[in-house]
Amino acid sequence: MIVSFLSDFGHADEFVGVVHGVIARIAPDVRVIDIGHDIPPGDIRAGALALLRAIQYLPPGVALAVVDPGVGTQRRGIAARTEWGYFVGPDNGLLAPAVAMVGGADLIVSLEDPRFRLPAEGATFHGRDVFGPAAAVLAAGEASIEDLGPVVEPVSVTPLLLPLVEADGRGGLRGEVLWVDHFGNAQTNIAPADLDGLGLGPGHDVAVQIGGGEYLLSWVDAYGDVEPGEGLLHIDSYGQMAVAVHGGRADDSFPVGPGTQVVLRRPGGGNRVPVQGVNPDV
Amino acid sequence: MIVSFLSDFGHADEFVGVVHGVIARIAPDVRVIDIGHDIPPGDIRAGALALLRAIQYLPPGVALAVVDPGVGTQRRGIAARTEWGYFVGPDNGLLAPAVAMVGGADLIVSLEDPRFRLPAEGATFHGRDVFGPAAAVLAAGEASIEDLGPVVEPVSVTPLLLPLVEADGRGGLRGEVLWVDHFGNAQTNIAPADLDGLGLGPGHDVAVQIGGGEYLLSWVDAYGDVEPGEGLLHIDSYGQMAVAVHGGRADDSFPVGPGTQVVLRRPGGGNRVPVQGVNPDV
Amino acid sequence: MIVSFLSDFGHADEFVGVVHGVIARIAPDVRVIDIGHDIPPGDIRAGALALLRAIQYLPPGVALAVVDPGVGTQRRGIAARTEWGYFVGPDNGLLAPAVAMVGGADLIVSLEDPRFRLPAEGATFHGRDVFGPAAAVLAAGEASIEDLGPVVEPVSVTPLLLPLVEADGRGGLRGEVLWVDHFGNAQTNIAPADLDGLGLGPGHDVAVQIGGGEYLLSWVDAYGDVEPGEGLLHIDSYGQMAVAVHGGRADDSFPVGPGTQVVLRRPGGGNRVPVQGVNPDV
Repeated sequence: MIVSFLSDFGHADEFVGVVHGVIARIAPDVRVIDIGHDIPPGDIRAGALALLRAIQYLPPGVALAVVDPGVGTQRRGIAARTEWGYFVGPDNGLLAPAVAMVGGADLIVSLEDPRFRLPAEGATFHGRDVFGPAAAVLAAGEASIEDLGPVVEPVSVTPLLLPLVEADGRGGLRGEVLWVDHFGNAQTNIAPADLDGLGLGPGHDVAVQIGGGEYLLSWVDAYGDVEPGEGLLHIDSYGQMAVAVHGGRADDSFPVGPGTQVVLRRPGGGNRVPVQGVNPDV
Repeated sequence: MIVSFLSDFGHADEFVGVVHGVIARIAPDVRVIDIGHDIPPGDIRAGALALLRAIQYLPPGVALAVVDPGVGTQRRGIAARTEWGYFVGPDNGLLAPAVAMVGGADLIVSLEDPRFRLPAEGATFHGRDVFGPAAAVLAAGEASIEDLGPVVEPVSVTPLLLPLVEADGRGGLRGEVLWVDHFGNAQTNIAPADLDGLGLGPGHDVAVQIGGGEYLLSWVDAYGDVEPGEGLLHIDSYGQMAVAVHGGRADDSFPVGPGTQVVLRRPGGGNRVPVQGVNPDV
Repeated sequence: MIVSFLSDFGHADEFVGVVHGVIARIAPDVRVIDIGHDIPPGDIRAGALALLRAIQYLPPGVALAVVDPGVGTQRRGIAARTEWGYFVGPDNGLLAPAVAMVGGADLIVSLEDPRFRLPAEGATFHGRDVFGPAAAVLAAGEASIEDLGPVVEPVSVTPLLLPLVEADGRGGLRGEVLWVDHFGNAQTNIAPADLDGLGLGPGHDVAVQIGGGEYLLSWVDAYGDVEPGEGLLHIDSYGQMAVAVHGGRADDSFPVGPGTQVVLRRPGGGNRVPVQGVNPDV
């Protein structure tokens, strides 16, 4: 089995390499794919969303994810068995959305068996001492998930609450920016189907309220359907409604970041605000 | 076959990992080498130059390169067959210099066959949906290049124009900085042989005009041939003329960046400008 | 054998990928683990400490390390044989602490044989042209270490002087911050056993002098043993005394960075300084 590995360890230190080393010592033939290690430190939601987006593209096997601001407290480490494969990480909500995406877990254990932990004086590098070894033995088939520790009740596992889309009471749909990617595209939690009830779809102009500003954007299929430098609304590569700029960054033209409120509605008296201009609301 | 993968995806998101995942799902036994993923976003020339520099050191196989500011427009995706192996990426000039370096392509196809694309609602992650799958099936031998789409005329493929070295009309040779590396070394497009006609070679002092300033630099074999902190001209590790500073960064001491004009000539009345000093031209 | 690879090459250029490529061309079946490549450019001590921390977690094989501010001078390249495996890199102290950690070398050679170097016009990319090829042939078993060049006297190899812990003459122990990690934790060179003589151990309050300030910190087992936002002293995941903040960064709350002097002593008249407050000594 392949281990796919996500963390907030960054690249300045040797942390990622050490986890690779630990896995290679336990399971020399197991390959590791790095999903990414630059999740903002301790940002469980950002890590959970990245794992959620990635999971369907990863080879079934073991997903090892470590974003763990609670290391050194009483939070548990867990392993979950799903139809996709195994998930290993802290019990803080990080794994929950991806596990749900692949159909849920039929067995979850608490990582307590000392046979599958590295001995360590300190107690703050569980990626190396607890999660890495657990992922390695599962991927190599050297232990069953039940060997790793006691079964826990699914209801006791920490969920992750993701923001819901809701009517704004004025004919619009209120959502939230989940993620601004490396290229400046702003993904929302609004799905295309959410907009059916508003009579909005591809080809329409949509009034988009972001922060304190309102913008008239075209819902297009491709960046190339608007002029370079112009803003647009589209279904992004993960199937969510997103704000982008053809040849530019949405977060340069609009006041968006993770968590920004966004309202979509049918256009009324609004004017198309040129996104190249200075935005007085930023 | 090994896939060697270059992109401007950065490391903040899961993009690189997802492409690794897609390749592993299609071709579990194919290894992927990351050439690098921190090409400045959308900078086709920087990506093309990095691929050009790297190609002769990579194991023959498949070169997968994605720097793609035109994603979501009508630009094509292509695969090219060469004596080195296959090149896969957008038809925007990114692949052209490296393909030429290994002797040119004898067959180029447009990546249109839907059997080798992932279905996606959006149309903006071709590294995942188009280029990654094409690289995977070529590397695994699961399809021939002709299976991927219709053959295209080489003359229809987008070239990349790299700056030429030219006489400056005053006895000098005018070139351009192509690249400033992680250590601050400034590589030019001037080859050592270009300087034969000027009677310049290793061991000579050379008048180097950079931006508005002129500096007298020694053409040496090794950093250690000048004093620490002193500027120098040398043949860099890729065989190009480069400006460097022993124990320092050329871009701290000289006004250089990618695209900066550089003129080399035999020294006349110029004085050696101490590079440690404040440079009035910066 | 697996090659574990550390450098200061960064990720902006193709340097890391090119070394992977060179190894794959020479030894197609050899796996490479990236320990990390974001050592500050030319910082031999930071590289040596990262390798030292990592080595016991890496699979025995070949450690390839390149932090090489002296490239282009007369410094040698070396390979060392140890009980752990082989170490390859510049003879500038980078390898010394890790080699000592695994019991020392019984054979060291100077990398001079041209059969195991890539030909290159320039002389400044020894990771690609000298160290990578040497690591590859050792890992693949294609050459013995004696083939790579002449044996050198251990006494001629450059050591790395790490700071010693010493009594401060006033009942305290003076050490130094070795490393501030990605999460802001400040590791010192003081080991828990060093504090036995002061009668200090887990559960005690300790007076910690950092820069010009003095702080009363609890020596705890886990972050969770103090309040969120509160500073603490603990044994870190590598077994060294470290200053941390529960849910925060030590380098935000205390004036610490690599090289900062730290004195630990039994608390006297000092008061616990709230670490959340503005630190007048920063």
